[in-house]
Amino acid sequence: MEKGVINIGLIGLGNVGCGTVRALEENREAIERKVGAPLIIKRICVLHPDKPRPISFDRSLLTTDAAQITDDPEIDIVAELIGGIEPARTYIERALRNGKNIVTANKELLAKQGHDLLARAAEQKLDFGFEGSVAGGIPIIQAMKVSLGANRVHELIGILNGTTNYILTRMTQHGSDYETALAEAQAKGYAEADPTDDVDGFDAAYKLSILASIAFQSRIDLSTVYFEGIRKIAHQDIAYARELGFVIKLVGIARETGGRLQLRVHPVMLPSSHPLASVNDVYNAIFVRGNAVGEVMFYGRGAGMMPTGSAVMSDLMETARNIRFGATSRISCTCFDVKPTQDISEVRSNYYVRMQCQDRAKVLASVASIFGDFDVSIESVVQKRGTGESAEVVWVTHQTTEGDIRKALDVISQLPVVREISNWIRVEE
Amino acid sequence: MEKGVINIGLIGLGNVGCGTVRALEENREAIERKVGAPLIIKRICVLHPDKPRPISFDRSLLTTDAAQITDDPEIDIVAELIGGIEPARTYIERALRNGKNIVTANKELLAKQGHDLLARAAEQKLDFGFEGSVAGGIPIIQAMKVSLGANRVHELIGILNGTTNYILTRMTQHGSDYETALAEAQAKGYAEADPTDDVDGFDAAYKLSILASIAFQSRIDLSTVYFEGIRKIAHQDIAYARELGFVIKLVGIARETGGRLQLRVHPVMLPSSHPLASVNDVYNAIFVRGNAVGEVMFYGRGAGMMPTGSAVMSDLMETARNIRFGATSRISCTCFDVKPTQDISEVRSNYYVRMQCQDRAKVLASVASIFGDFDVSIESVVQKRGTGESAEVVWVTHQTTEGDIRKALDVISQLPVVREISNWIRVEE
Repeated sequence: MEKGVINIGLIGLGNVGCGTVRALEENREAIERKVGAPLIIKRICVLHPDKPRPISFDRSLLTTDAAQITDDPEIDIVAELIGGIEPARTYIERALRNGKNIVTANKELLAKQGHDLLARAAEQKLDFGFEGSVAGGIPIIQAMKVSLGANRVHELIGILNGTTNYILTRMTQHGSDYETALAEAQAKGYAEADPTDDVDGFDAAYKLSILASIAFQSRIDLSTVYFEGIRKIAHQDIAYARELGFVIKLVGIARETGGRLQLRVHPVMLPSSHPLASVNDVYNAIFVRGNAVGEVMFYGRGAGMMPTGSAVMSDLMETARNIRFGATSRISCTCFDVKPTQDISEVRSNYYVRMQCQDRAKVLASVASIFGDFDVSIESVVQKRGTGESAEVVWVTHQTTEGDIRKALDVISQLPVVREISNWIRVEE
Repeated sequence: MEKGVINIGLIGLGNVGCGTVRALEENREAIERKVGAPLIIKRICVLHPDKPRPISFDRSLLTTDAAQITDDPEIDIVAELIGGIEPARTYIERALRNGKNIVTANKELLAKQGHDLLARAAEQKLDFGFEGSVAGGIPIIQAMKVSLGANRVHELIGILNGTTNYILTRMTQHGSDYETALAEAQAKGYAEADPTDDVDGFDAAYKLSILASIAFQSRIDLSTVYFEGIRKIAHQDIAYARELGFVIKLVGIARETGGRLQLRVHPVMLPSSHPLASVNDVYNAIFVRGNAVGEVMFYGRGAGMMPTGSAVMSDLMETARNIRFGATSRISCTCFDVKPTQDISEVRSNYYVRMQCQDRAKVLASVASIFGDFDVSIESVVQKRGTGESAEVVWVTHQTTEGDIRKALDVISQLPVVREISNWIRVEE
């Protein structure tokens, strides 16, 4: 069965939608030769038809009524590019009911309800592509699903959020403090006015959840992904990291260890020789370790109109090919299992701890003794005289469980000689 | 049309064949769930059935008669893993005539006759996978064909040969000379007893040719790929590179510029901040610049039993899925054009030139004047006193054409004050 023309409906013409349209228009000839059929954008649903957009396109395609896409019997593929849970989910469900293949870049919806949506698509033998949902133009979904498909993945570490990587890069390279670097990111359009989604780790947690579900073929409950953001990172931490030979990055880590999954997003100190340590600015990178392939890394722009447009277009092309060959749902959801997860308290890591103490003899001894009570052994300690009677003390621990370090810090923070535990950061080695 | 069991015949059970079998055996459950059908290795053709091999497998599968694979009506996919032109080509052609899908890791055959073989496969609606032919486990073929398929690729730079990268890394990090580093590579099994294929650039040229054919959708005549190897690189060059802030790497470069393709493999000096500069040992990496995606990089082990086995298995899985869905030849040859190529003499680059001169006044002036005659302008020059009356002089030029620098060096080498032009290396900025 071959189909002559592939009709596409776009829901959403923001950044990603415009990138998709432009990628198609600029490279149409090659795209259509590769697919073997014309790709026609038949209709585009937007909220505000009169809004100026950075691309030229046929405005007669615009509608404000999504049903003109989800219910149009001639449309083969619906690309949902509005993001968020609603109304995206409703549109996708309606499109699936009407037999449409789906392409989306919606990480939040995928992370929260991807399994159900993919299962519905598979039941109806429809494609459901979501390359654009993780790491922009980096083809990590296809790589994990197909190219590394013969591997048991042990571990995946990624810089998954460009905004926070830009902020941390500015803090590292220019000595900016967090607020200044955030303001710079906002001025450049890399951060939203309300940056919560990025700087508190939500965005990276969605992406890690999606990647882990593919890597470990397991349905991931987002509530089992531990995450924190970068708001607490101070320029002092950046400076100590450099002194110690580390770079601070916000990473997502997914590991399968002893049959259980460890899923966490948080800042880490990476040795400056680590391949991810030199991934700067808005770039993303994902490091994967598989039992056959060994170590592989993928690097590129993690967001932006054209990189994400490139990813969405690649899904549209794959789906179009599958439609032509009557082979939609060739590759569907691979979350065969629900693997147990590890609580963050069970994670083993090294830790950096920065605290303000009274500058008196025996302070080090009393703090060290409490670390000892909780089996936290110390690799190094640096004390610098602060202002007045205060001293800043930085500890780096040997490997310990997160439960133990948290309990130790709880007790230490109540010592009369300790004014404040300013920050603590996991150290990845 | 769905098919219950996928039967595979392997031709060759060397390094790559063993890796393929082990990847399948170790990850069989997940692989078969993803594909949706059992994958059965039905027969394996080898030259020496009694040779010891690093994997355990059912020896009753072995045959020395390739026709038992190419002519077996029950076999769906033939994986050719012997390498070289003959008898690989004959086996593949026979298998194609018999309606078998093909998977191969044979870079030489692909580079020299890939277009014809892929065209024959497409005519018969058969799959022809060759992920294992370039960069081992790095999924660069799938990435270029599918994931970056919506891009016009402008440029591709890759470290494509692990053996030479290992040798250059040893020379850089340990100050070894070329012969010592080569012997180390041979002792580790990274280089053959006859290292020609690797150290003279043949292997990288094959791979560049394959990648360029996909990147630029053009049939590449291997004779239009300029290549040279690393035999001339001396430890002095490595030391000067470091002084100048560069690292020497053997790279493949493919660019489309002014409608013509530039295809070349040779050592270059890369700024030490370049993403490829820190790719060391036997690792490979490929840097791609596309008009939508921007810059992306892929990094991993470029050779080895398991990484290449991972790549071959991914092709077997894709083909198996396509067989199940009656969709073989979904993705076939994309060499739609034969784009004109640029001669190496037209390439523009900066150049490093190291020469031995008589240590006399006016030597610099007379050499510089000849550079000037050929419009080669000089960025920097370093003169070091050598032994006796000789001095070593190192020049770095501004951008010039390769034709001009070659002509200038021809004349300079005939100056009575110039004892020898020891080496010259392109500088990539």
